[in-house]
Amino acid sequence: MARGRFISLEGGEGVGKSTQLTALAQALEGRGLKVVVTREPGGSPGAEAIRKLLLEGDEKRWNPRSEALLFAAARSDHIEKTIVPALERGEWVLSDRFLDSSLAYQGEAGGLGIDAVRDLHRFGSQDFLPDRTLVLRLEDDAEGAARARVRDGNPGDRIGSRPPTYHAAVDAGFRAIASKEPDRVKLIDAGGTAATVTARLLYALGDLLP
Amino acid sequence: MARGRFISLEGGEGVGKSTQLTALAQALEGRGLKVVVTREPGGSPGAEAIRKLLLEGDEKRWNPRSEALLFAAARSDHIEKTIVPALERGEWVLSDRFLDSSLAYQGEAGGLGIDAVRDLHRFGSQDFLPDRTLVLRLEDDAEGAARARVRDGNPGDRIGSRPPTYHAAVDAGFRAIASKEPDRVKLIDAGGTAATVTARLLYALGDLLP
Repeated sequence: MARGRFISLEGGEGVGKSTQLTALAQALEGRGLKVVVTREPGGSPGAEAIRKLLLEGDEKRWNPRSEALLFAAARSDHIEKTIVPALERGEWVLSDRFLDSSLAYQGEAGGLGIDAVRDLHRFGSQDFLPDRTLVLRLEDDAEGAARARVRDGNPGDRIGSRPPTYHAAVDAGFRAIASKEPDRVKLIDAGGTAATVTARLLYALGDLLP
Repeated sequence: MARGRFISLEGGEGVGKSTQLTALAQALEGRGLKVVVTREPGGSPGAEAIRKLLLEGDEKRWNPRSEALLFAAARSDHIEKTIVPALERGEWVLSDRFLDSSLAYQGEAGGLGIDAVRDLHRFGSQDFLPDRTLVLRLEDDAEGAARARVRDGNPGDRIGSRPPTYHAAVDAGFRAIASKEPDRVKLIDAGGTAATVTARLLYALGDLLP
């Protein structure tokens, strides 16, 4: 039995990531694939316990270095307990966020450096990478912020509630990663109808599909 | 006001570390020092929450790399929120375990390598070190194991319940660290009466005492 493929879906706040995650999973299942949908931080019992620590509490609960170490610890558990076993069963794994969120949020926007955060992943998870990473982004930053406001109207969690300059730096981080690893990481235009965006995502997986 | 001193007390299971921690704190207070007693993992609200994750659950809850990342995350929070503020107030800080437990337990005995675990500390806490580290040890390993059994009679936590070969490797780790950093790390004979051991600890702090 062929090993499954591991796809991560990334993007800043309000780009329609949740909608696309569901749509992409359905599209893949429609092609006869068994799909496991998971998320970060979290995705395994241990990692979900770490997620609670990361997302609860006030903004200053964790310093940036503790936060990056917690993300790396959760990711190691998630890979070992959930992702690798599913791939070995021949299933496809679709993760709502993965390593590249840590690189963009903590590494680039948080000022720790993309390389330092990647080193933690090397330590924790032998630099285990997705077969493909799809980064949803809107050219017009204001559009994303507006969607996020419409979507929930709540004050957001510790990370979602950070200022616009932080989210602009996140976007710069994703673009830097994509230009460094163009085969793995694809930037996807998140503008237009949901069906159009889903079609773009599938196109970017074309070479991996059976 | 002079900055306080940071002392860590280390040792394997059943060497009388808890007793000595209390005795040493009292001896230092008897010399007019203000002493903050703390512990690892833990020592700050965030780090105590991580401690719960580390010590609860079954032996296989965390893989060794997740575990080391969690310890490093907790330590970064402990240093920032508890240790450094106390030192800056001129207080002495006495910690029940610190970095060297991670180096000996996860690095040496757990097979991750002392250098790799030290790198996590460099990332998380800028390689912040105690002014002195006192490692309690018994030449005769059987004596320590016997004391531990007498002390509690409970099955122990995730780490205390590991096999004798693991604890022998921990001891080898502490000895390796002490031989590499002889000025900071002192091996202290834990045999004899409690008062004798406390006197040895104070002697090993002689050059730091006011």
